[in-house]
Amino acid sequence: MTYCVGMLLDKGLVMAADTRTNAGVDNVGKFKKLYTWEYPGDRVYVLLTAGNLAVTQAVVSILNEHEAHPPEAGDTLKTAATMFQAAHVVGDAVRTVKALDAAHLTSNGEAFAASFIFGGQIGGERPRLFNIYAAGNFIEATPDTPFFQIGEHKYGKPILDRVARSDMELGEAAKMVLLSFDSTLRSNLSVGLPIDLLTYETDALKVEHTKRIGLDDPYFKMLSSEWSKALRTAFANIEALDI
Amino acid sequence: MTYCVGMLLDKGLVMAADTRTNAGVDNVGKFKKLYTWEYPGDRVYVLLTAGNLAVTQAVVSILNEHEAHPPEAGDTLKTAATMFQAAHVVGDAVRTVKALDAAHLTSNGEAFAASFIFGGQIGGERPRLFNIYAAGNFIEATPDTPFFQIGEHKYGKPILDRVARSDMELGEAAKMVLLSFDSTLRSNLSVGLPIDLLTYETDALKVEHTKRIGLDDPYFKMLSSEWSKALRTAFANIEALDI
Repeated sequence: MTYCVGMLLDKGLVMAADTRTNAGVDNVGKFKKLYTWEYPGDRVYVLLTAGNLAVTQAVVSILNEHEAHPPEAGDTLKTAATMFQAAHVVGDAVRTVKALDAAHLTSNGEAFAASFIFGGQIGGERPRLFNIYAAGNFIEATPDTPFFQIGEHKYGKPILDRVARSDMELGEAAKMVLLSFDSTLRSNLSVGLPIDLLTYETDALKVEHTKRIGLDDPYFKMLSSEWSKALRTAFANIEALDI
Repeated sequence: MTYCVGMLLDKGLVMAADTRTNAGVDNVGKFKKLYTWEYPGDRVYVLLTAGNLAVTQAVVSILNEHEAHPPEAGDTLKTAATMFQAAHVVGDAVRTVKALDAAHLTSNGEAFAASFIFGGQIGGERPRLFNIYAAGNFIEATPDTPFFQIGEHKYGKPILDRVARSDMELGEAAKMVLLSFDSTLRSNLSVGLPIDLLTYETDALKVEHTKRIGLDDPYFKMLSSEWSKALRTAFANIEALDI
């Protein structure tokens, strides 16, 4: 399993992914699932991936190869005029992998499973955030629901549902996203530390703040222990049911 | 979907079930999923059900018919000597329904889906709690994990993982179970009010405290609003990530 969250704020983006992969609980690995592309001063992209690792890595490889050797027709991440067009570039890469692999996966009884959260900013356009499906199509975040989750989304959703707002500060949103990871890590062994966290400030047009958060990260340790303590206190302070 | 929680405490049992059923979001209904059998002074049983409603209702009907007209061989809920034997009686009823219906469900492309939480007390034996599967077999709660959930378990699990302990008071455990429902109700439309809540005090050997909790229940309203407030305060009081 995997857990990734992307959040679109008035002030930028917060993107985070765990790094655990597994083919059964007896076969776990560590792979990066947060990818960035930047053309400083012009554009920045962040991609979070979930699903079949062979599929998601192939999508990323195709995107990278097209940056190095642009195809004859069609946009690349470098040439896309808008984030909508860039999301199409990613969706097309998903469709290319699907054409190559889906039938082989199906004949092995496996699904073509992949999903992506794709955010970024191009020039003067505001930052935008997309949830891209295995079919290569996508939806876009709006202020009503300014976040997307992929992978094991349920344990970490209640805190997002209660707290997430577009007008949060980046540091507050990062705190919320890490709390969402904390709940997920506690309940699902197939989601594991370290977490890759990226915060992007609108109009920076470069990757400035990335952080790999492991077991020993002092902020995450503080967050996890303070939150536990606060929940226990909050629980104790509410009146019990009078039976 | 459905959400049910059963918890085994040193001091008794807390059992709760929602009442929403659905065959798609355009077809929702209200059905009781918490059943009790009592022989005051001798024994009490509580059964929570999830899965295919036709299956779970058939299991309950068989158990009731066997109380009225005992089969020639084998125990009934009335005659079982221990909770372990009583759990076998329920498991056998599940297997009877499976023999009648499973092939027909499968031929319609539907699964024989049913799960149960079964708790109670017989005579001088301590209260016991079981999670009974569609195959009719079961596991029993222990102090390490004193609760079971069936149906939509993920949203409501973090609070149980953090707070549940066998030595809680019944009223505290009921508060915790209702908070677990509150999180689930917020995130999954297919789980719905009212909630049927039963609290059983060890050695009562009768059903004393049942409560149907709807939208207007003052305790549940207080709980839900105080918990939201406390979570927001707890969140605000933790230092943001310094980017």
